[in-house]
Amino acid sequence: MNTSIQSAPPSRGPSDHDVRTQVVEAATEYFARYGYEKTTVSDLAKAIGFSKAYIYKFFDSKQAIGEVICANCLNGMKQAVDEAIADATSASDRFRRMFRAFVDAGTQLFFEDRRLYDIAAAAAREPWPSVQAYERYVEDLVTRIVREGRETGEFERKTPLDETARAICLLMKPYVNPLLLQYNLEGAVDATALLTSLVLRSLAP
Amino acid sequence: MNTSIQSAPPSRGPSDHDVRTQVVEAATEYFARYGYEKTTVSDLAKAIGFSKAYIYKFFDSKQAIGEVICANCLNGMKQAVDEAIADATSASDRFRRMFRAFVDAGTQLFFEDRRLYDIAAAAAREPWPSVQAYERYVEDLVTRIVREGRETGEFERKTPLDETARAICLLMKPYVNPLLLQYNLEGAVDATALLTSLVLRSLAP
Repeated sequence: MNTSIQSAPPSRGPSDHDVRTQVVEAATEYFARYGYEKTTVSDLAKAIGFSKAYIYKFFDSKQAIGEVICANCLNGMKQAVDEAIADATSASDRFRRMFRAFVDAGTQLFFEDRRLYDIAAAAAREPWPSVQAYERYVEDLVTRIVREGRETGEFERKTPLDETARAICLLMKPYVNPLLLQYNLEGAVDATALLTSLVLRSLAP
Repeated sequence: MNTSIQSAPPSRGPSDHDVRTQVVEAATEYFARYGYEKTTVSDLAKAIGFSKAYIYKFFDSKQAIGEVICANCLNGMKQAVDEAIADATSASDRFRRMFRAFVDAGTQLFFEDRRLYDIAAAAAREPWPSVQAYERYVEDLVTRIVREGRETGEFERKTPLDETARAICLLMKPYVNPLLLQYNLEGAVDATALLTSLVLRSLAP
C-alpha cells in the first residue's frame, strides 16, 4: 500500500485510510475485551458509534477486520524476533535466539492479550493470508540462518538446503503456530532449549 | 489385577470382571456412535439395559469407563508400533519404522474411529493416567532405540542419553499425542519422514 504523503485534494471527511485505521483500533480494543468469536459487526458498529453499513464500506466482513488485527499482531511478533536476533554472534546463536524469541512472543501474546491470541489461533486454523505470510517469514528466516551457518562452516552442507529448512520449520511449528502453542505452553522454554540443541546437533558438519 | 483362573465358589450372576467388560464393550460401541462428550451414564445405562446405579457399582464415573476404552485404544496403537519395529535391521531403521507406525496408527484411529479418537484427545487434554502411561511407553521406546544405536556405534554418545531421548520425544509429540495429531494430519507422513531424517542426522556419531 502506498503510504507516502501526497498533496491530496481537500475533503470534507477523514480519508478512507484514517477510517480503516480507526475501525481497526476500535475493533482491537473491542475484541480484546469481548472476544472475537462472539462479537458481531453490529455490536462493533454500535460500540464505535458508526453504522453497520458504514463499516461494511471499508471491510467486507468481520474476518476482514480480524485479518488486519491478526496481521498487526503477527507483525509485532516478527519485530520482536528480528530484534532478538539482530546482534547474534553466529548462526547457531541466531538460531537459538530466534526459536526462543518466537516462544517468548507467542507466550506473551497468550497471557497478556488472550483474546487477541484467540484471533491469531482462529486465523491459524483456516489459515488466513496473514498466517500464511507469517509462515513464509518463519521459513525464510530459518533458510537464511541455515545458509549463513553453511557459509561460515558452522553447519553441514550435504543435506539439500530446502530439506533442512523445512524439517526445522516442522520441528518449530508447535511453538510458532498460535493454534498449536496453546497446547505446548507448559515447559515451552525448556522444550525449545532441548529442541534447539537437537537441531544444532543435526546441523553439525 | 489378578486375572488367573481360580476355582471360585459358584455364583448366580456374572463375575464383576465380566460385568465390567460388558459395560466397556457396550460403552465403546455407544460412544463410537454418539460421541463421548455428549453422552451421560444414564443414556448409556438405558442403551445397555442396566440401571444407572448398577453401572456405578462398577465404575465411579463416565470418565472411569472412558479411561478403560482409552487404555484399550492406546494399547492397540502400542501393539501396532511394536509389530512394526519387531524385525527392524538397525537402530536407525527401528526409529524410522516406529515414528511412521505412530503416525499411521493415530491417523487410522482418527479416520476410522473418529469418536474413539475424540475420547483419546479428551484424555490427552487432562491427561488421564492411560495417556501418561502411553507417554512413558513412547519415552521408554525412544530411549531403548537410542541406547541400541549407541551400543552398535550407529549413534553418537556424547549427549546425555536422557537429554537426547527427551528432545526426540518432544519432536515426535505433535504426531504421537492424539490431541495434537489432529492439527498435524495434513502431510503427516511427509513431515515425519523429514523429521526422522533430521533426528538421524542429530544422532550421527
